[in-house]
Amino acid sequence: MDEDILYHLDLGTKTHNLPEMFGDVKFVCVGGSPNRMRAFALFMHKELGLVEGEEDIKDICAGTDRYCMFKTGPVLSISHGMGVPSISIMLHELIKLLHHARCCDVTIIRIGTSGGIGIAPGSVVITDTAVDSFFKPQFEQVILDNVVTRSTELDKELAEELFNCSKKIPNFPALIGHTMCTYDFYEGQGRLDGALCSFSREKKLDYLKRAYEAGVRNIEMESTVFAAMCGLCGLKAAVVCVTLLDRLDCDQITLSHDVLMEYQRRPQLLISNFIKKKLGLCDQIS
Amino acid sequence: MDEDILYHLDLGTKTHNLPEMFGDVKFVCVGGSPNRMRAFALFMHKELGLVEGEEDIKDICAGTDRYCMFKTGPVLSISHGMGVPSISIMLHELIKLLHHARCCDVTIIRIGTSGGIGIAPGSVVITDTAVDSFFKPQFEQVILDNVVTRSTELDKELAEELFNCSKKIPNFPALIGHTMCTYDFYEGQGRLDGALCSFSREKKLDYLKRAYEAGVRNIEMESTVFAAMCGLCGLKAAVVCVTLLDRLDCDQITLSHDVLMEYQRRPQLLISNFIKKKLGLCDQIS
Repeated sequence: MDEDILYHLDLGTKTHNLPEMFGDVKFVCVGGSPNRMRAFALFMHKELGLVEGEEDIKDICAGTDRYCMFKTGPVLSISHGMGVPSISIMLHELIKLLHHARCCDVTIIRIGTSGGIGIAPGSVVITDTAVDSFFKPQFEQVILDNVVTRSTELDKELAEELFNCSKKIPNFPALIGHTMCTYDFYEGQGRLDGALCSFSREKKLDYLKRAYEAGVRNIEMESTVFAAMCGLCGLKAAVVCVTLLDRLDCDQITLSHDVLMEYQRRPQLLISNFIKKKLGLCDQIS
Repeated sequence: MDEDILYHLDLGTKTHNLPEMFGDVKFVCVGGSPNRMRAFALFMHKELGLVEGEEDIKDICAGTDRYCMFKTGPVLSISHGMGVPSISIMLHELIKLLHHARCCDVTIIRIGTSGGIGIAPGSVVITDTAVDSFFKPQFEQVILDNVVTRSTELDKELAEELFNCSKKIPNFPALIGHTMCTYDFYEGQGRLDGALCSFSREKKLDYLKRAYEAGVRNIEMESTVFAAMCGLCGLKAAVVCVTLLDRLDCDQITLSHDVLMEYQRRPQLLISNFIKKKLGLCDQIS
């Protein structure tokens, strides 16, 4: 191709010098909410002890409102919206961006929120394998009108490394487990409080308990396609999500704003410690 | 339930007086981009000739960055992000909101962007039936671990009414046709320019031509679940999308900013004329 327009990022190979803008990227962190990914970039900037002012950390994708993107040092922070289709558009264009920018040895981590199963709200789940609604470690990709099944395995060493990192943070509840990815927040996750609901409380609990027995510790909406695409493109990938509730107890998220904010910062804290360790910037506190 | 928290809209039955805030809503317009839905609300406000200043049209969901919502008179304008899961979360919470607010006789219209098949870029497609990647008029909803098939038929009378409305706008290219809804923008829509591509240009064209023969005139990523959920909940629903390119010619969206903006305003213009007609505010111009 003469020119590659990354439409949903509002970037392109003719309009932007991608190697200059992104050539030094080593860590990409992605998450659903634009505000959260901006907060992570600002937090990371402080943690890296960088000299430029934080007012320089501007949304690189400001020309579009589909996604937000921030960069501080070797760390890129990008929002991906909610659900498999939304994150997959972003990943296609991000992977092309990393290729055009000639980045190498990139680690990509999804930091998100999720519903827990049988674990205390506020726990951070580091995913070993992403599974679908049927507890299978696979992602079904429709290509033209064929269905192709892709593996959703994540980097086991990276998951272990993150888990070891978590142990060094005081009072940090973390565990390794399977993460279930669904296409729907209500009926697909067994919630009784959606606009539509055709099953009983008993059926819901039976499903969630079977998920627990299959090794699932949390539920979110992006991990399978994230694992599949990163795996196929040779990116070292991890998924780290905090749980906002225990789905065996309830369906609604009733946390106060402050508790919600504190929970959402937990994956950010873990990843910032991990990145600092990888960069040789040891955390003096822990 | 004692309280219903519409988490992703940052609204709730205890914290907000939903009948007072939304009781008069008769038209709900939804679209992917927050900026576009804000622009539509401001445009609609002007078209309705309402007296309050447009500075009063604020994002009702400002407490969250998942969706944006604006209200002017009886018209609600909401963003839904990209893809089936993202719009389905919004629809669950919107439908509960309309119920709590005791709204009746509500018409809901998705105004979006899409890729055309065999029609000129800039054409506005009014959907008669939403179809899946296999050209079938159905939506597969995973409920717990069961797959349930739902109808994706839309209101035929409403589609006809919108088409008649379009004929009264000078130089307005509109047509009625099937709309295909996919889970992926790249591999799922036969694009050759994604980060992953495993098929030839011939296979792509064969697929898109078969779609055309099946009656498909445009491709987007939300219409099947939108039609299925609105149908089940008794909402009169329509999908009106402008096409940004002809997929038989190309994969990349290379329109200039100004042309893109003009195309995006076409569904807005049609819907504003339709709403004014329904409200008895005849458009003097046409």
